[in-house]
Amino acid sequence: MNESFGVRLQERIRDLGPLCVGIDPSATMIEKWGRVDSVDGLEFFSLAVLEAVLDTAAVVKPQVSYFERFGSEGYRVLERLLEDARDANVMVIADVKRGDIGSTNEGYAEAWLGDASPLRVDALTLSPFLGIESLTPFFRRAHESGRGAFVLSATSNAEGRQIQRARTADDVSVEALVLQSVAALNAQHDGLGSLGVVLGATRERPEFDLPALAGPYLVPGVGAQGANSDQVARLFDRCPLGTVLVNVGRSILERGPERSALRDAARRWRDELSAALL
Amino acid sequence: MNESFGVRLQERIRDLGPLCVGIDPSATMIEKWGRVDSVDGLEFFSLAVLEAVLDTAAVVKPQVSYFERFGSEGYRVLERLLEDARDANVMVIADVKRGDIGSTNEGYAEAWLGDASPLRVDALTLSPFLGIESLTPFFRRAHESGRGAFVLSATSNAEGRQIQRARTADDVSVEALVLQSVAALNAQHDGLGSLGVVLGATRERPEFDLPALAGPYLVPGVGAQGANSDQVARLFDRCPLGTVLVNVGRSILERGPERSALRDAARRWRDELSAALL
Repeated sequence: MNESFGVRLQERIRDLGPLCVGIDPSATMIEKWGRVDSVDGLEFFSLAVLEAVLDTAAVVKPQVSYFERFGSEGYRVLERLLEDARDANVMVIADVKRGDIGSTNEGYAEAWLGDASPLRVDALTLSPFLGIESLTPFFRRAHESGRGAFVLSATSNAEGRQIQRARTADDVSVEALVLQSVAALNAQHDGLGSLGVVLGATRERPEFDLPALAGPYLVPGVGAQGANSDQVARLFDRCPLGTVLVNVGRSILERGPERSALRDAARRWRDELSAALL
Repeated sequence: MNESFGVRLQERIRDLGPLCVGIDPSATMIEKWGRVDSVDGLEFFSLAVLEAVLDTAAVVKPQVSYFERFGSEGYRVLERLLEDARDANVMVIADVKRGDIGSTNEGYAEAWLGDASPLRVDALTLSPFLGIESLTPFFRRAHESGRGAFVLSATSNAEGRQIQRARTADDVSVEALVLQSVAALNAQHDGLGSLGVVLGATRERPEFDLPALAGPYLVPGVGAQGANSDQVARLFDRCPLGTVLVNVGRSILERGPERSALRDAARRWRDELSAALL
């Protein structure tokens, strides 16, 4: 890959709009589609969503927990999905929230950002509980390979506040510390950075000037989780076009299995978010 | 399973000693054994370690990142390892540090604690970054199935302090909040609890009376990471026998691939830790 993830993502959002479609094949959702919750149901669901949204969504975001439910066979379905997405030139963020000590993170970085890995994606989500510095293997490998990473700052769930709003020794909240740290990493390279932050649309504005990240935001919490496109627009009002990627899952997925209904729902969300974020 | 994880673990530690052997098939370690870092190398390494320590270690702890490097094929090797461990009656803790919002955690809980899952283990490690309450699906499923979980409190790496020692709104450190919360969950049931905490031997004593957890501790940081058995003994001096499980990885693994050398190293660590923790 010649261009960095940050630049590629920005171009794609400018072309297609800021919609990220969550591919969340939970037991509940597969059964809502009238299918049996099995490896076959998982494959049918995942590939159907990809096919329906590939010309509308800037990015798709498979939630890996729902694949891991089926062990190695679930991972084989995930590999098939990732292959199809690559063939269709759809960008993928693996929602894995990985994070461990440095040496262990080398293994995860190889899994999700390694050029030869069957699980390679454009970017992944990371949890900073073991310290932001422990995530260095991901940052290094993302930079080398033209891929990216999104570190959790303020997640969309209410219980997230408990630890994310705790105050560090420098009297800054954990969520703001993540933003500051990722901004500092992006500042080490010219242009738009490839390291992003997960910031829930359901959360308060953090103590950080959001455009200063100089990298992308991945925004959950819209639709079924309660936030609307106006809230997103207000929260990110001064961020450059193409740096805010908004995830919608359930509100689109529950329209399936009809491809046309899925496609229409994705287009409506895309158009609404595009208009709000312009 | 008739007995709870906490009780089964305590019995096993009383019988065999407090050693947990980390199965960490990193590229570096596989190559140190003179093998090619491939799916075959991964399988050889993992099964060899299990076989060498199965009558010495109370528990084995595969580090899942090193299996995920190889995608679905790596997970197939992990499934084979877990099957062999079940056949040999060796307890397994999957070191996965999973943690997400509640609905997503249902998927992970099914993967690692579900009776029908090929990845089912006795217990897993959890990251509380999205709030301890978000981990409820794991706690519920552990209780129902006689399995367990270890929530990260203070990890063995120095960078862990950054977030783990931040102060919550109730002016308690994040690491102590985890201990208090898990203790409260264990107190909901009679007897020794099945919910544990990860507490690095390299870290300071937290603001919490450690025996009050009424559940097991998983203790990393011993051996190559710098702590010794006396430090462990001092940190947990008033905890009941059978509630402290000490992980040793590299210091044993680097003695391979000779089974007898691996076995001897595991026995030495087991004997030393048993003597110190008595």
